Amino acid sequence: SIDAARLLGRIRTLGEIGQDADGRLIRLAASDTEKLGRDRFVAWIEGAGLQVAVDRIGNIFGIWKPDSVTDNAPLMLGSHIDTVIGAGIYDGCYGTLSGLEVIETLRAEGLTPSRPIVVAAFTNEEGVRYAPDMMGSLVYAGGLDVDTALATIGTDGTILGDELERIGYAGEHQPGFPRPHAYIELHIEQGPVLEREGIRLGAVEHLQGISWQKVVITGDANHAGTTPISMRRDAGHAAARVVTFLRDRAQASNTPTVATVGCMRFEPDVINVIPSRATFTVDLRDPDEERLREEEAALATLLDRLSAEEQVGVSVERLARFEPVKFDQNIVRLIEEAARERGLACRRMTSGAGHDAQMIARIAPSAMIFVPSIGGISHNPKEYTDDEDLVAGANILLDVVRRLATE
Amino acid sequence: SIDAARLLGRIRTLGEIGQDADGRLIRLAASDTEKLGRDRFVAWIEGAGLQVAVDRIGNIFGIWKPDSVTDNAPLMLGSHIDTVIGAGIYDGCYGTLSGLEVIETLRAEGLTPSRPIVVAAFTNEEGVRYAPDMMGSLVYAGGLDVDTALATIGTDGTILGDELERIGYAGEHQPGFPRPHAYIELHIEQGPVLEREGIRLGAVEHLQGISWQKVVITGDANHAGTTPISMRRDAGHAAARVVTFLRDRAQASNTPTVATVGCMRFEPDVINVIPSRATFTVDLRDPDEERLREEEAALATLLDRLSAEEQVGVSVERLARFEPVKFDQNIVRLIEEAARERGLACRRMTSGAGHDAQMIARIAPSAMIFVPSIGGISHNPKEYTDDEDLVAGANILLDVVRRLATE
Ligand SMILES: NC(=O)NCCC(=O)O
Ligand SMILES: NC(=O)NCCC(=O)O
Repeated sequence: SIDAARLLGRIRTLGEIGQDADGRLIRLAASDTEKLGRDRFVAWIEGAGLQVAVDRIGNIFGIWKPDSVTDNAPLMLGSHIDTVIGAGIYDGCYGTLSGLEVIETLRAEGLTPSRPIVVAAFTNEEGVRYAPDMMGSLVYAGGLDVDTALATIGTDGTILGDELERIGYAGEHQPGFPRPHAYIELHIEQGPVLEREGIRLGAVEHLQGISWQKVVITGDANHAGTTPISMRRDAGHAAARVVTFLRDRAQASNTPTVATVGCMRFEPDVINVIPSRATFTVDLRDPDEERLREEEAALATLLDRLSAEEQVGVSVERLARFEPVKFDQNIVRLIEEAARERGLACRRMTSGAGHDAQMIARIAPSAMIFVPSIGGISHNPKEYTDDEDLVAGANILLDVVRRLATE
Repeated sequence: SIDAARLLGRIRTLGEIGQDADGRLIRLAASDTEKLGRDRFVAWIEGAGLQVAVDRIGNIFGIWKPDSVTDNAPLMLGSHIDTVIGAGIYDGCYGTLSGLEVIETLRAEGLTPSRPIVVAAFTNEEGVRYAPDMMGSLVYAGGLDVDTALATIGTDGTILGDELERIGYAGEHQPGFPRPHAYIELHIEQGPVLEREGIRLGAVEHLQGISWQKVVITGDANHAGTTPISMRRDAGHAAARVVTFLRDRAQASNTPTVATVGCMRFEPDVINVIPSRATFTVDLRDPDEERLREEEAALATLLDRLSAEEQVGVSVERLARFEPVKFDQNIVRLIEEAARERGLACRRMTSGAGHDAQMIARIAPSAMIFVPSIGGISHNPKEYTDDEDLVAGANILLDVVRRLATE
């Protein structure tokens, strides 16, 4: 089994890197604080005697390639170390550090793998600073050209490529080489299902589709006191109608569809001026691709109607679009087997969050292992998973890797 | 009559002070750019041979007190030179510069006034940086203690008193002395009424009530992909419900009630995080005090309902509250007479915007003169009034002042 104290200690150490004065964890992709997190991770990889490689999009790899190797296609484990704003300490880091932990454990065991085993920390999984999310793994999987990705402009006006150069993580390797034999990602669930059902482990067999759009509505600035309601072209009011529409629609449906408006900005943002511009994001998700398309179409129809009814301008930019993914049945079964052998309840499930595994699934058999999130809380400082569950998840990863590394 | 070229030239000169790189006019109260505007105005006052006085809240006075004076209570003209963000060049400056223009004209004419004539530029009329609006004139009228006002914290975290010190406009005079004999303010209408009716002048006999509140809604940050709709405490959605409620209610009513949400901020403002906090402003106005109270009560009821239905926290801060004002009938009649004598169509009307006259009306007979705003546009760079109308308005002010200065 893995070294529980070492794994838990590293999760806590990494969780302290990037906390601001108010104790909020903010380690946005390619930022100064994320550089500190990367440096720490690289130091651990090196300390474990693994080879370090960084590719052009900044993905970090810790490579164990012993002489026993007969097949060069690596078994890849991993996740990410970037975070949202006001994050918890487990999202991403748990999987990355468990990948390293599993490799160290197998080396100490004296395992003779038939293929390299690699732990990956993919760049910009959260997508908060640069869209789309899962960018590093998407580029790795060939779904986005690396030069296009490096030219992405962030919410803060920075360019990803410049920032990677600045923090010293613009590597030389061309992304996507080598193509993995298989990819397994361990992650906290971030949702309420496992805890509610009292089940310790999830064998993730699907991941829902994700649609991200940025909407800009333009109206006319005018005086809040003198402009009759009938003469207003209020961009803020039109934006609010989108927010309530999406929520009402998701609530009324009998489907797992979710819709979120997370970012919102009014301009000029002045108390006595009717907003001339509202800029906001729409995050739509559904496990069913057809239904996701219907949700997108319903939003487009609403925006057309608003444009007519409110006499506002509407422009839409697509920030991310990923279809639902079905993971590899063989790996899902290996996860279930490993759980059974350790006497832990396990259920098959769908992931509500996007993950790097969703991208790597395009080029290699992939699957995920979930552990419970207390209260289903994530992207929040209150994100929490019991130590016992963290250790159990890492041991299941260990068992599955041991199987796949020697086959 | 006034010197049209001098007045129009000054309006344009002042309108260029505070334009940013994009040509947006931003001269927020007690800011660096407003200091430049104040300095220009003071230079013109001094150039006209008037005495300059600045009071503790930063109100600037240009005083003409000839030897002929038999009554010390001055006739006061004025407005303000601070602006909103993305302002037009007329709001406030037109009245301030016309006040100076009228005094210069009367001096040149050789008028022998029986009382001092004073032009005032009141501090922070817009209320954009520091609430409440009309702060300088409110303090002058005794409606707000000067030390309390100076301690006001701005939307940018600054303290008004510190900023006035910094820009050199923390004067020594105690606000409110001298108490005016009468106050007249010339202003652009900022609304659509005069232009729509083809009338050149408004004799403003009422000013509607103003209620400003800042609302903070708190929910729970959580993951946009994993959190079922039924488990969300979405502060952004609750805020959007307030925006649509206020608009629907104002639209459905058969009253002149207006409601505006001009400022809106989501936190953490991240695409895949359910907003944990939404902070926004509510600007409610009505010419009828009882109806304004009903609107405030309806908002309070909605906020209570939201707190229960959406399981969010709600806190409300009052930023400004002014009752409707009835101006002095005698001055209103003088304005009508002056218009008649110059052969200009004039109508009595209500002001939709708040004005310094509304505050000074507490301590002296006051009224306002309006000229048309093209398209009813204000608080917008497109704010525009024809030169001919600007000149006509200033001449009416001249005629009324000539009457009141000698009575
Ligand atoms: N796991 C996770 O939080 N990924 C971020 C991308 C998303 O919003 O799903
Ligand atoms: N005249 C004017 O725009 N005053 C600002 C205060 C208000 O919002 O009415």
